[in-house]
Amino acid sequence: MTIRSLPFTKMPYGGDWNPEQWERPVWDEDVALFGHAGIDLLSVNIFAWTALQPDKDTYDFARLDEILALLESRGLRACLGTSTAAIPAWMATRFPDVLRTDFQGRAHKFGDRHNACPNSPTYRRFAPALAGQLARRYAGRDVVALWHVSNEFGGACYCPRCEAAFRTWLRAKYGTLDALNHAWNAAFWSQTITEWDEIVVPNVLTVQWTERSTAVQGLTLDYQRFMSDALLGAYRLEADAIRAEIPDAVITTNLMGPYRPLDYRAWAPHLDVIAWDSYPAPHDPPAAVSLKHDLMRSLKAGQPFMLMEQTPSQTNWQPVNSLKRPGVMRLQSWQAVAHGADAVMFFQMRRSVGACEKFHGAVMEHHGRTDTRVFREVAALGAELRALGDVTLGARVPARVAVWFDWPAWWAVENSMGPSNALDYLREVTALYAAFHAQGYAVDLVGSDSDLSGYGVVASTLLYLLPAGAAETITAFVEGGGTFLAGLLSGVADDSDRVFPGGPPGPLRDLLGVWVEEVDALPPGQDNEVVMQGGLEGTFACSLLFEQLRVDDAEVLATYGQDFYAGSPVLTRRRVGKGQAWKLGTSPDAAGLRAVTRALCDAAGVLPLVPELPDGVEVTRREGTGGRFLFLLNHTAEERRVSVPGLAGTDLLSGDVLGETVTLPPRGVRVIHEGAGA
Amino acid sequence: MTIRSLPFTKMPYGGDWNPEQWERPVWDEDVALFGHAGIDLLSVNIFAWTALQPDKDTYDFARLDEILALLESRGLRACLGTSTAAIPAWMATRFPDVLRTDFQGRAHKFGDRHNACPNSPTYRRFAPALAGQLARRYAGRDVVALWHVSNEFGGACYCPRCEAAFRTWLRAKYGTLDALNHAWNAAFWSQTITEWDEIVVPNVLTVQWTERSTAVQGLTLDYQRFMSDALLGAYRLEADAIRAEIPDAVITTNLMGPYRPLDYRAWAPHLDVIAWDSYPAPHDPPAAVSLKHDLMRSLKAGQPFMLMEQTPSQTNWQPVNSLKRPGVMRLQSWQAVAHGADAVMFFQMRRSVGACEKFHGAVMEHHGRTDTRVFREVAALGAELRALGDVTLGARVPARVAVWFDWPAWWAVENSMGPSNALDYLREVTALYAAFHAQGYAVDLVGSDSDLSGYGVVASTLLYLLPAGAAETITAFVEGGGTFLAGLLSGVADDSDRVFPGGPPGPLRDLLGVWVEEVDALPPGQDNEVVMQGGLEGTFACSLLFEQLRVDDAEVLATYGQDFYAGSPVLTRRRVGKGQAWKLGTSPDAAGLRAVTRALCDAAGVLPLVPELPDGVEVTRREGTGGRFLFLLNHTAEERRVSVPGLAGTDLLSGDVLGETVTLPPRGVRVIHEGAGA
Amino acid sequence: MTIRSLPFTKMPYGGDWNPEQWERPVWDEDVALFGHAGIDLLSVNIFAWTALQPDKDTYDFARLDEILALLESRGLRACLGTSTAAIPAWMATRFPDVLRTDFQGRAHKFGDRHNACPNSPTYRRFAPALAGQLARRYAGRDVVALWHVSNEFGGACYCPRCEAAFRTWLRAKYGTLDALNHAWNAAFWSQTITEWDEIVVPNVLTVQWTERSTAVQGLTLDYQRFMSDALLGAYRLEADAIRAEIPDAVITTNLMGPYRPLDYRAWAPHLDVIAWDSYPAPHDPPAAVSLKHDLMRSLKAGQPFMLMEQTPSQTNWQPVNSLKRPGVMRLQSWQAVAHGADAVMFFQMRRSVGACEKFHGAVMEHHGRTDTRVFREVAALGAELRALGDVTLGARVPARVAVWFDWPAWWAVENSMGPSNALDYLREVTALYAAFHAQGYAVDLVGSDSDLSGYGVVASTLLYLLPAGAAETITAFVEGGGTFLAGLLSGVADDSDRVFPGGPPGPLRDLLGVWVEEVDALPPGQDNEVVMQGGLEGTFACSLLFEQLRVDDAEVLATYGQDFYAGSPVLTRRRVGKGQAWKLGTSPDAAGLRAVTRALCDAAGVLPLVPELPDGVEVTRREGTGGRFLFLLNHTAEERRVSVPGLAGTDLLSGDVLGETVTLPPRGVRVIHEGAGA
Repeated sequence: MTIRSLPFTKMPYGGDWNPEQWERPVWDEDVALFGHAGIDLLSVNIFAWTALQPDKDTYDFARLDEILALLESRGLRACLGTSTAAIPAWMATRFPDVLRTDFQGRAHKFGDRHNACPNSPTYRRFAPALAGQLARRYAGRDVVALWHVSNEFGGACYCPRCEAAFRTWLRAKYGTLDALNHAWNAAFWSQTITEWDEIVVPNVLTVQWTERSTAVQGLTLDYQRFMSDALLGAYRLEADAIRAEIPDAVITTNLMGPYRPLDYRAWAPHLDVIAWDSYPAPHDPPAAVSLKHDLMRSLKAGQPFMLMEQTPSQTNWQPVNSLKRPGVMRLQSWQAVAHGADAVMFFQMRRSVGACEKFHGAVMEHHGRTDTRVFREVAALGAELRALGDVTLGARVPARVAVWFDWPAWWAVENSMGPSNALDYLREVTALYAAFHAQGYAVDLVGSDSDLSGYGVVASTLLYLLPAGAAETITAFVEGGGTFLAGLLSGVADDSDRVFPGGPPGPLRDLLGVWVEEVDALPPGQDNEVVMQGGLEGTFACSLLFEQLRVDDAEVLATYGQDFYAGSPVLTRRRVGKGQAWKLGTSPDAAGLRAVTRALCDAAGVLPLVPELPDGVEVTRREGTGGRFLFLLNHTAEERRVSVPGLAGTDLLSGDVLGETVTLPPRGVRVIHEGAGA
Repeated sequence: MTIRSLPFTKMPYGGDWNPEQWERPVWDEDVALFGHAGIDLLSVNIFAWTALQPDKDTYDFARLDEILALLESRGLRACLGTSTAAIPAWMATRFPDVLRTDFQGRAHKFGDRHNACPNSPTYRRFAPALAGQLARRYAGRDVVALWHVSNEFGGACYCPRCEAAFRTWLRAKYGTLDALNHAWNAAFWSQTITEWDEIVVPNVLTVQWTERSTAVQGLTLDYQRFMSDALLGAYRLEADAIRAEIPDAVITTNLMGPYRPLDYRAWAPHLDVIAWDSYPAPHDPPAAVSLKHDLMRSLKAGQPFMLMEQTPSQTNWQPVNSLKRPGVMRLQSWQAVAHGADAVMFFQMRRSVGACEKFHGAVMEHHGRTDTRVFREVAALGAELRALGDVTLGARVPARVAVWFDWPAWWAVENSMGPSNALDYLREVTALYAAFHAQGYAVDLVGSDSDLSGYGVVASTLLYLLPAGAAETITAFVEGGGTFLAGLLSGVADDSDRVFPGGPPGPLRDLLGVWVEEVDALPPGQDNEVVMQGGLEGTFACSLLFEQLRVDDAEVLATYGQDFYAGSPVLTRRRVGKGQAWKLGTSPDAAGLRAVTRALCDAAGVLPLVPELPDGVEVTRREGTGGRFLFLLNHTAEERRVSVPGLAGTDLLSGDVLGETVTLPPRGVRVIHEGAGA
Repeated sequence: MTIRSLPFTKMPYGGDWNPEQWERPVWDEDVALFGHAGIDLLSVNIFAWTALQPDKDTYDFARLDEILALLESRGLRACLGTSTAAIPAWMATRFPDVLRTDFQGRAHKFGDRHNACPNSPTYRRFAPALAGQLARRYAGRDVVALWHVSNEFGGACYCPRCEAAFRTWLRAKYGTLDALNHAWNAAFWSQTITEWDEIVVPNVLTVQWTERSTAVQGLTLDYQRFMSDALLGAYRLEADAIRAEIPDAVITTNLMGPYRPLDYRAWAPHLDVIAWDSYPAPHDPPAAVSLKHDLMRSLKAGQPFMLMEQTPSQTNWQPVNSLKRPGVMRLQSWQAVAHGADAVMFFQMRRSVGACEKFHGAVMEHHGRTDTRVFREVAALGAELRALGDVTLGARVPARVAVWFDWPAWWAVENSMGPSNALDYLREVTALYAAFHAQGYAVDLVGSDSDLSGYGVVASTLLYLLPAGAAETITAFVEGGGTFLAGLLSGVADDSDRVFPGGPPGPLRDLLGVWVEEVDALPPGQDNEVVMQGGLEGTFACSLLFEQLRVDDAEVLATYGQDFYAGSPVLTRRRVGKGQAWKLGTSPDAAGLRAVTRALCDAAGVLPLVPELPDGVEVTRREGTGGRFLFLLNHTAEERRVSVPGLAGTDLLSGDVLGETVTLPPRGVRVIHEGAGA
C-alpha cells in the first residue's frame, strides 16, 4: 500500500477541517476557500464522538453525512477520522474505567483529550464499535480517501486495569517469575517478585522518583514496551473494525516524529501509510526537521509518507509562538516533499473561536479574510502543487548512509541513572545525523529490524541497548563490505537492560577490537579534545562522556587531547572482512562529527549528492517512475549558489532550465527534473 | 458610607493586635505603647475562632470582652474581626466537609488558614453564626469602630460540594446545556456536556495541565467567576449576619490590591469601605505601589480607603526580607494617603513568639524596646498624623486619565494558550500606568462598569476580553470628546472567551478603523522598534507581541522599524466625533509608553499636575471640604527640586510656607495645603 | 566499645559485596580478587530480605550460609547486614500498612528501598524477627565481625499509623494540650488543639506549603524529632533482637554525615561504633569533607569511626558522575583516616548488572578486569594499609577548637520563614569550620549535650534554637577560661522554637553584653563590610543577614562599613571570668572568617598544628598507644612544601625520614610517625 494507492493524480493538499464548531453558512465559505487555495483533501471528524454518539445506545451521523456530501459535491476528498481521541463526557461519567490514572497515581476525571485508558473495557468496546459504525455507513463512498484512526496516540496510563494487563503481558513474555526476576536483576535492593500479583506499575508510588529516574530499569523498560503495545492495540481494534467493513481501506493515524513513548517501528507494519505532524520550533535547525522526515519515511522502508499536519503560520502551544517568516511555510512544505512526503497538509483550515487552540494558526484566521499574507502563501503553494501534478508521486529517496534510531535504546539509555543526566538520546542522534546532512549525504534511519544490506555506512551513537541479533547483523554488514560506526555507550546492555557479561561494547567487542575501561563524565561546558591522527586531520572539542578505550585489535585514529587520559584512544578502526568497524568514545562537536562522518563515507566509497554544500542549503534526490528529481532548498535569508557537476534539468517550480550551477534565492526551492528540458 | 462615617477626627492609626497570644501583663504594656505611638485603632479578634467557640455548641467571649474593655478604657477603638479565616481544629476533624480540596485534587486536612470551603454547609452555618453572635454581643458599643470580616479572602476549592454548586451556578447562568456548550465552544475536542452532572471543576484531574493552562478556557473562566462569587458569598453571609444585628455597622474585609483570584469590582459594592494590605517588595518601583492604591481607591469610585496593613519594618514571607530603610515606612504611608488613604495601619503591633510569622516586622519587636529606630519612626508618624488632624479626611483624588483594569480580562488573557507565555497582564497594565505616573498625571483604574464621562483619556492594554456593552461605552466616550487607546490584543474575545466574529479588535473595529491580520511573538530579549511619524518623534524599542495592523480608516502615527513587517503600522489614530481612538499594536519600552501617553494627554488637553516631574518624585492632589492638598514625595535618596507654577501654600508636615519651587529632602514628603498661609 | 574491639590487627579494608546478584562461579572470582586487593572485610546481606524470608512463615538461610562459609574459608570477615532496608514484595502486597505515605499525602505501593513505615506493626514485627533469626543462626561465628542493621536509615512517613504514634509521643512529651498549645503558640492563626485526635502530621495536606515552609514551626519541629526517634526506634528493635542473642555483638548502621532528617546525636549512644558513607561531589572543597568526618567522629566523643562506604571511582546518582582523578580515592581514604577513621570501605565490590546502580563505580567494573587504573589503585591502597598494620588503630584526634553543630538548631532555623530563604545552616557552619580548617586547627563538632571543658574555643553560627541549659553550659565554659563565639541569629528561640522573652540573643544576652535591635537581609550578591578595629585589622565583605547590635556591656571589635548602619557594631567581645564571649552579627566571607577565627584562637591561646598551612594542604594529628601521627594531605595537583617546626619522624607510607620541612607531591599524603626513626 503506498500513497499512489490514494485516489489522487497530484499531491494531496489540505488539512484539518472542523465544521462542527461552526454554523452551516460558514461551511460554504470554507468550501469556496478550499477551491481558491487548491485544497483537495480534508481531515474531518477528528473530535466529534459526543456528537456521533450522544449516549451509549445512540448514534447520529446526520451532520457527518452533510459534511461528506458537501465535500463530495465539490470534488473534495476526506481523510475520515474515527473521532475516538477524546472520550465523551457521558462515557467518562457513567463508565469511569475509561479514564486514565496518571504517573502521580491520580485517577483522572472527565476533560481534555487523549484521555482514554487503552486497557479500559469500556474504551475497547465503544471505540471500535464507533469505527465499525462509521466504516459500515461510509463503505464504498469515494469521498473517503483514507481513514484516520483517533488522533496523535500518546501518553500513558497507570490504572489498576493497566496493572492487571501488564501482569498478563509479562507472564506471556517471561513465563516464569524466575525469568522475570533475572531479567530485572530483581535481587538488587530485594525487588524480587514472588507472586504475579505483586507486580506494580512503575510510577511515583512505586519504583520511580521522577518520570526519568527509576529504581528498576527492567520494570520501567517493560512498561514502556507494554504501554506502546497497549496503545497500538487500541489502534488496531479500530483498524480491524474498519477493515472488517472495507477490506481495502487505507488506514493510518498521525504520528509525531521521534515521539518517545511510542515505538513507531512496532507500529509501522499496522499502518497502511505513514502520516505525521511536523511542528518545528522557530529556531530548530533544518537538519532536526529533516531527521524527522527521514525517520518517518524509513518506518516503512522508504515508502512515501504524508505530512499530515503543519501550521501555515504559528502554533499556540510553544512558549513563544513566532510567525513563520514569509516563504518559510513553503520552504518547509517542499522540505517534506524532498524527504519523501507525497501529501502536504495543515492543521487547521480555520482558527477555532474558543478553547485552547484558538490561537493556533490556520489557513483562515479569525478575521476570515483571504487578502492576507498567510492565505496568499497557502494558495500559492496550492497552485505549485497543482502545476507539479503526479510526476513525483511515489518517488523514493535512495540513501547509502544509515543512522541507527531505536526506541528501546532511547528508553533504556535515558532510564539509566548515570553517568550523566545531561545524556539526551535525541540530541546525540540528531548531531550525528546533522553531520551527514550538512555534507549532502542522503540518510535513512534504521533499527534492529532493518535490512542493512543496501548501505555503505551505518553509524550509531548511544546504541546502549543492543538487541538480540543486532551484533550478528552488524558484523555481517561489515564483513560484507560495510563501514560501521559504534558511538558512545555502545553495546552496554541487552534487551532487558542487563549489562553484557564482560562489559561494553558487549557482543560488539570482537568486531570493534576495543573494550571500555571506564567512562568519565564532565558537566556541560567542560570539554576535552579529539586529536586526529593516522591520516585524519584536525583537533575538535568533545564533551559529555569520555570512554577510556582499551585496544585489543584496532588502529587508533584519534586520541584525547587533555586530562589524565590525554593521548589515549578515542576513535579506532578495525578492518574486518571487506569492511570496517569504527568506534568513537565521546561526543565531538559539529565540526568533529563532520570530519568523522566524512571519513566513514570516504572509507565506504559513499558520495554526497553534491561535492560541496553551502551552509544552510539542503539537497535530496527522489527517484521514481516519473524520473529523477534533485531538490535544493535554501534555508537562509541570503542567495546561495550550488555547483552540481553534470546537472542538466528543469526546475519544475519556476520552469528554469538549469545547468551545473544552480542559484537559490533566499528561502528558495528548486525541484529539478534531471534530464528534462535540457 | 465613607471613611468620614468612622468615629475619628483624625486619620486612624494602628493595626493588628493579637493579645490572645500573650499573657495578660503584656496587654497593658501594649496599650501604654499605643499611647506613646499615637495609635488609636486596633484590628482585633482576627484569628480566634477556636477560643471563641471551643466546640460546636459553646461560645466564650470572656477574653474578647476583656480586650475590648481595655481598649475602651484607654479611648482606643477596635476594628473588630469575625475570626473566621482559620477554622478550628475540632471543626475540621468533626465536620471534614469544611476543608478544601486543592487544584491537585487533594482533600486537605486540618491546618493553616484560609482553609474553609466556601460551599461547605458547615462553614456556611458556623461562620455567620459566629459573626451574628459577635454582633449581638457588641452592638451599640462605641469601642467597635468598624467590622472586619474574616481575613484576606482568597484561594480556591475544588471539592465535590463546590462542583455541585458550580453546576447550579452554571444552570442559573446558561439555562440550557446548548447555551453552555456554545459559550465554551465545547465541540472543540468533543468536550460537549450532555447532562449537567457531567460538568467537572477545572483542575489537574480534568481540563487543566497547570494552574495557567487549560483545555477549555470557557470552563476555566466560569470557574474563576464562580469561585470569586463563592468567596464573596461567604463574606456576605457574615456581613448580613452583622447587619441584621447592627443596621448601621461599617463592614469591610482586607483586600490585597491586584489579587488575581478575586474580582474586587464585583466585591466592592458589598464593602462599606475599601481596606487593603500593602506589602511592596524592596525594589518595587513606586509606580507599582501607586497603581495598587489607585486601583483600590477606584473600586468605590474614588471613595477614600484604609491602608489596613503594611509592615513597619520587614515582612517574613518574601524570599529576602530586607528592612525598610529609614524614612521609607513614613514615605510609603504618606504615599498611601496621597493616593486616597484615610487610615494608616500596620501588621502588626507585636512580633509573635512562635509559628510562621514570628519574623514578621512589628511596631514592637521581640525585645520589647521602644528606644529603637522602628518604634521611633512609628511614633513620629503618629505624631504627624495627630498634628494633621482631620483636614484631609474625605478628600478626593481627581483624575482625568483612566487606565483599564478588569479581572475577567486578566483571567481570560492569561488562561489562553498563545501567542506567548511571557504575557503578564499585571506587568503590561503597570507599564502603561507607570508611563502616566512618571509624568505627573493623576490616574484612576476603570473597568467595564465604570462611568467614563469624566475622563479626558482612557487607555488600555490587553483588553482581550471585551465585555458586552464595553464597545458601546467606549465609542460614546470617544464621540463625546474622549481620547481612547486600545493596546495590544484588544477586543479579541467576548465574555465567554469566544473570539469575536471577524477577529480582533472585534466590536472596536469600527471605532479604531483598523483590524489585526496576524500577531507575531518574539522571545524575551528580542525586540522590534516603534518609529514615530506624523508629528510624533522618536524611535523606541518594543517587545513581546507584534500585531500586524491593517488600516481601514485611520492615520498611521508609527510604524515598525524592523523584520518583514518593517514600515507597517504599529500605532494609529482615528478621529471620531469630538474625540480620538488610538490603537497600539505592541508593547513599547518605558520611554515609548511615555511618548505615547504624553501624546494621548496632549490630544485630549489633559495636563499633568506639574509640568516636569523629576525622576523618582511622585505628585498627587487631593481635594475636599478641607481644601486642596498637593502631595510631593521623593522616592530617591537624594534631594529633589520641583517647580510647581503658581503654587503658594503651607507644608502641613513641616509648617514651611512654600512657593513655586519646592525642595524635597531625600525620601522627603510635602503635604502642601494649597493657598494656606501664603 | 571501640573499633579496637573488632577482630582486626590492621585497618579493615573492604566494602559492600552482593553475591546474591550473581551466579556461584562469580563468587569465587570475587573472593580471589579480595586477596589481590588486600580486602578483608565485606558488608554482606544488605538487601536480601525476600530471599531470606520468601513468605511470612518461611526463612531460608542456605545461600547466606554459603556466603559466610566462603568468606570464612578465606579468612575474610563479614559486616553482616540484617537486610531490612527494602521490604519484600509479598509483605508490601499482603500487609500494606508496612508502606509509607509521603509528604504529599500519597500512600505508596511496593517498590524502591527505604520504604517501610517505622510505625507499621508489620514492620515492627517482621524486621526484628529477621534480625533475631540471623543473630541466633550466626551467633558465635568469628566470621561475623560486626552487625549492620538495615541501611542508610532515612526519609519520613506521614501515614495514619504515624499520626497516631505522633499523638502518643506528644502526649508523653507535653502531658496536657495546654502545654502543647503554648509550646506551639497555637493561638496564632487559631491553630489551637482541643482534643488529641485533632493533631495532624505536618505535610502538604495540613500545615506545610512545601517541605521547607510551615504554618506551625512547633508542630513541624516536633514531627522532625518524632520521626528521627521513630526511625531510631526501628533501629533499636533490631539491635535489641541481635543483642538478645549475642550480648557482645558490635552493632551499627551506616550514617550519612550531616543528614538533615536524623538527629545522629540522639542515635549515637545506641550505636557501638559510628560508621558512615562518604560521597563527596567532584568539586566539594576538602574542608566540607573533613567537617563530615569530624562530625561523625565527634558523635561518640572522639571514638574512631568506620568509613563504611565510598566509591572507588564514580557515583551514578549525581547529576554528572565524573571519575575520581588518579590518586584522589587514595587521598580521600587517608583523609578519612586522618580525621579518625579506623576502617576504609567501598561501595561496591562489583558493579551490578542491572537496576538503578549499575553505573555506580566498583572495585570490579562490568568488564571484570584487574589490569585497570581503578583496580590498581584499590590494590595499592590495600597494600599500604596492610603495611601500616595496627599502629594507628584507636588513636584519637585531639582538638582544642569546637564548632557547634546541632540538628534541632538546623531544623528550626530552616523551618522558620524569614528573614531570608537563602539561609542554609550547613553552608554557614561549613564556612565557619573551614576558616579553622584552613589554618590548621583541629576541630570537634559539639552540641548541646557535649562536654565543653577541654576546649579553648567554642564557635557557633545559627545557634538559633538554644536548648535549655545551653546558656548555662556556655557561660560556665567562658567563666572557666574559654572563648566563645556567638554568630548570626544566636539565642533566638527555645526548644519549642518560641522566641525568648526579650528577643535574641535570649539567655546569652548577659554573657555577650549585646542585644539585637533588628536583622536586615540582603539578596545574594549584595554585600556589606566588616571593618575591623580595636587591634584587629582588615575590611571584609559580609552578606546574607546583618544584625543591628546594641551594646550593653562589650567592646566593639568591628563595625559595618556601609548602608544606614555603617559604623554600628558587627563584632563584639566581652571579657567574662577567665574567658571571653564574642558576638558576630553577620556572615563574613572566607577571609573575614579566617581573621575572626584566628583572633578567637589567639585570644584563647590555641595553636594550630602548623604555623602556616599552604593553600590546599590539610593537617591533622592522631595520638594513641601506638604513638603520635601527623597527617599531611595535599589536595592540589601541584607539589606543596610545609614547615613543621620541631618535626622529626618517619612517613609510614614511603618510609621517608622527615625533618622540619615536608614536601608533598601532587595529591600526596604523609603519615608521619612523630619521633620514629629520627
